[in-house]
Amino acid sequence: MLGSVNESANWRDLIVALDDRHLDTLANAAAATIESLRGSPDAPRSDVSPTALRELVRAVTICPDEGGDPTTVLAEFATMVWRHGVVPSDVACVAHLHPPTLVPAVATELAIAATNQSMDSWDQSPAATEVELHLMAWLADLIGFGPTASGVMTSGGTASNLLGITLARSAAAMRSGVDVLQSGLPAEASTWRILCSDQAHFSIQRAAAQLGLGRDAVVAVASTPSGSLDVTALDEAIDRLTRAGSRVIALIATAGTTDLGAIDPMDEVAARARRLGCWFHVDAAVAGAFLLADRLRARLAGIELADSVTIDFHKLWWQPFNASALVVRDTSTFDLLRVPSDYLDRDDELEGVVNLVGRSLDTSRRFDAAKVVVTLRTLGRHALAEMLEHLVALATHAAQAVDDEPTLSLLAPPTAVMCVFDAPGASADDLRAVQQRLLVRGELVLGRTRIKGRAALKFTFMNPLTTTADVDRLVRVVTDELRAVRALPAVDGTA
Amino acid sequence: MLGSVNESANWRDLIVALDDRHLDTLANAAAATIESLRGSPDAPRSDVSPTALRELVRAVTICPDEGGDPTTVLAEFATMVWRHGVVPSDVACVAHLHPPTLVPAVATELAIAATNQSMDSWDQSPAATEVELHLMAWLADLIGFGPTASGVMTSGGTASNLLGITLARSAAAMRSGVDVLQSGLPAEASTWRILCSDQAHFSIQRAAAQLGLGRDAVVAVASTPSGSLDVTALDEAIDRLTRAGSRVIALIATAGTTDLGAIDPMDEVAARARRLGCWFHVDAAVAGAFLLADRLRARLAGIELADSVTIDFHKLWWQPFNASALVVRDTSTFDLLRVPSDYLDRDDELEGVVNLVGRSLDTSRRFDAAKVVVTLRTLGRHALAEMLEHLVALATHAAQAVDDEPTLSLLAPPTAVMCVFDAPGASADDLRAVQQRLLVRGELVLGRTRIKGRAALKFTFMNPLTTTADVDRLVRVVTDELRAVRALPAVDGTA
Repeated sequence: MLGSVNESANWRDLIVALDDRHLDTLANAAAATIESLRGSPDAPRSDVSPTALRELVRAVTICPDEGGDPTTVLAEFATMVWRHGVVPSDVACVAHLHPPTLVPAVATELAIAATNQSMDSWDQSPAATEVELHLMAWLADLIGFGPTASGVMTSGGTASNLLGITLARSAAAMRSGVDVLQSGLPAEASTWRILCSDQAHFSIQRAAAQLGLGRDAVVAVASTPSGSLDVTALDEAIDRLTRAGSRVIALIATAGTTDLGAIDPMDEVAARARRLGCWFHVDAAVAGAFLLADRLRARLAGIELADSVTIDFHKLWWQPFNASALVVRDTSTFDLLRVPSDYLDRDDELEGVVNLVGRSLDTSRRFDAAKVVVTLRTLGRHALAEMLEHLVALATHAAQAVDDEPTLSLLAPPTAVMCVFDAPGASADDLRAVQQRLLVRGELVLGRTRIKGRAALKFTFMNPLTTTADVDRLVRVVTDELRAVRALPAVDGTA
Repeated sequence: MLGSVNESANWRDLIVALDDRHLDTLANAAAATIESLRGSPDAPRSDVSPTALRELVRAVTICPDEGGDPTTVLAEFATMVWRHGVVPSDVACVAHLHPPTLVPAVATELAIAATNQSMDSWDQSPAATEVELHLMAWLADLIGFGPTASGVMTSGGTASNLLGITLARSAAAMRSGVDVLQSGLPAEASTWRILCSDQAHFSIQRAAAQLGLGRDAVVAVASTPSGSLDVTALDEAIDRLTRAGSRVIALIATAGTTDLGAIDPMDEVAARARRLGCWFHVDAAVAGAFLLADRLRARLAGIELADSVTIDFHKLWWQPFNASALVVRDTSTFDLLRVPSDYLDRDDELEGVVNLVGRSLDTSRRFDAAKVVVTLRTLGRHALAEMLEHLVALATHAAQAVDDEPTLSLLAPPTAVMCVFDAPGASADDLRAVQQRLLVRGELVLGRTRIKGRAALKFTFMNPLTTTADVDRLVRVVTDELRAVRALPAVDGTA
């Protein structure tokens, strides 16, 4: 059936123009899209197997010669795809930093797409450019930066970290008299090192790889049992590297590690960066939202000492993907990036006009700032803080429940919204079997990771509608499944 | 007024869950968002000045302590922002490759954001991962690649080009026995060169800069008067570079240059890449959509010989930003990129599961493939081809109109949807004044560029609702404004 839609749509009706007739068509399609989401199963995901799902999708004709009625196509897509997704708003969807979203943000996506501003140049996004700049100024102020700070929206924490480390590389090269973007890495770059904790996100290594420094340029410093960077180990690493003739070009602190949610001691790291004269980047993709909450923001002490900060709106700000930011202490550092272009970012622009392409590694770029601003204005800071505090409390509750459960063992007390644990006597294969069997049955989408070589399971609480009773149930589902797996005869307990 | 929204919203109602109550709330907000777009001025942009617009936006409180009613906030945002954007669906918005969008794509954005799948791992996007893979297989087939081909969605042509050139760099290093992502650029990398025409997009230079090779590693080869790469000049450049001890690691052909829409002779470039044993990347961000149209696809002969191809869905496929793809001839080349991670892309996954993070430079990534698939299935190939052919015909019509107008002079016959011209006797300052005065008055959003050092103006036709009568009117608006500018007493004619 899906291969043969026949009723031809008239493309003239389907262009999003802002007159009443075309907006009526859009309104109908938007309503149909939301209708198509109704009747979703009440589970974190459907129980279709990976191979069955692949066959289901591959049976679809991507582009028939003749199109179909929009409502029919949308409904078919729902049956095929939306029914077989994961459901981040389900309380049993706790594997990743993968949030449910907020109504004002999702509704604003419609306007973002309908008006289709592009953030690269002012003449493709006049008001949108000003809104993004205004949002970045607010965010810089929230961090505690001064008036010379600003930022730019990016597609995610990985892109924000890449941009921050790109600036760090340029600043290091500049001090050696090299314009690295123009002439490439100098020979001495083989001695350049970037230091972060062994719990930092893999995007730091990925950035170094992209930038030609290689993953080997990233030195992973030991972390404490709670997962935060060990300052003594950092000092030892700096000593060892400088004695060996290496040059530290950037120190990176993480505010909210991916697994344990640990926050590195930023003021300590800042002091070392200042002494070394190197860049200080903070990856606050996870815990940056703590800045909104009076009771949580003290945990981010020292963030205001950074040269650049990654903030991910599509994590604990409940924005739909993608929405992230890189904020810099000194806006003029973006000058390192700018490549004037004849058609886009000219040197003879209208007075007062900023072309954001000069700050970005992207060219065409959607107006994601819109959904963030509409969300902040609709919910307000107090509601967002309440939601955050509730999730942090849930993680603490989960840690207590795990502690109370003799078959489970907590790896570290939570600092953010995650709770990581293993099971005494259970092998890595057992834990894998628990995670995979629950996933395949669509019962629980559970996190699985490895902390310093030790296999572990993980809850990540992103949905503020989750209750402590839900958490207790999730712990029971895990212990029941663990019992079932350990009772299996086979060595490999996968389903 | 905008600084003081007071009516507090209940955040419990504003989380996008898939039950009827929460979907009702979303449906209301979506309807309100579309309502807020009504009454938009019938012009390509409002006539507010850059400085007035900045003041207007800066008066807004980004994040009040207490939130406001969603409908009110959405309406306020429309007044402040959507009224002061540019309108890509207006026939007088012709500056950039900046399209109006299509109803099925925009409506699908709602579902993308409401279900918030993340493409990095299968357990955050089970069906979505399969849909993206299926779309990429279809696109690879459309290009003419064989069954080993596949691809990945990216945030734009710039990101797709970066990914293609990242693969080229890795392949070159691998042939020297170096894993560049692990150990960084080897010393010999200072001799590596990337060749493209002098009309190639600046993202090629930007990619080389990011990758540590520097913009100097990009050798711009002369183009013909029509803007396509000059093969004789390419051969000379290759000879000169190899004699000087440089190593050509990639040849890049453009299918649809940004200004003239020129298409490089891809089979000729492919033959040289084969001889050199280097990577062959095609940037088909602009003209890739020609593959859909029987009457246009012959212009892309040779694209099937590439190692990697950039296709931008957010250009002539009328998708909202962002939606682009990198397609590779051989899926196994993505293995060069993969960084296994403990929490995300593990080596012991469920059978049949692909984690797309292994192909991407992003981690969290939205399900943009959904809107592309819904669009293709709603419109069908024939309608999309008709829309494309109409735009190409409009550019030809514009070229004729410019040719018929004695005060204007065509720079090159159009190959795609652009028409570039100047005015005999008019200075670069005159042309700038024409563009800026029309932009400030909100009468015409016109392109301005420089072709081989020569200042020029540009029409880019992206809206298939535009008629030849509209084009004639746009030509008259430009000639009238040019006359007004040349009659001004001052040397600098800006408003």
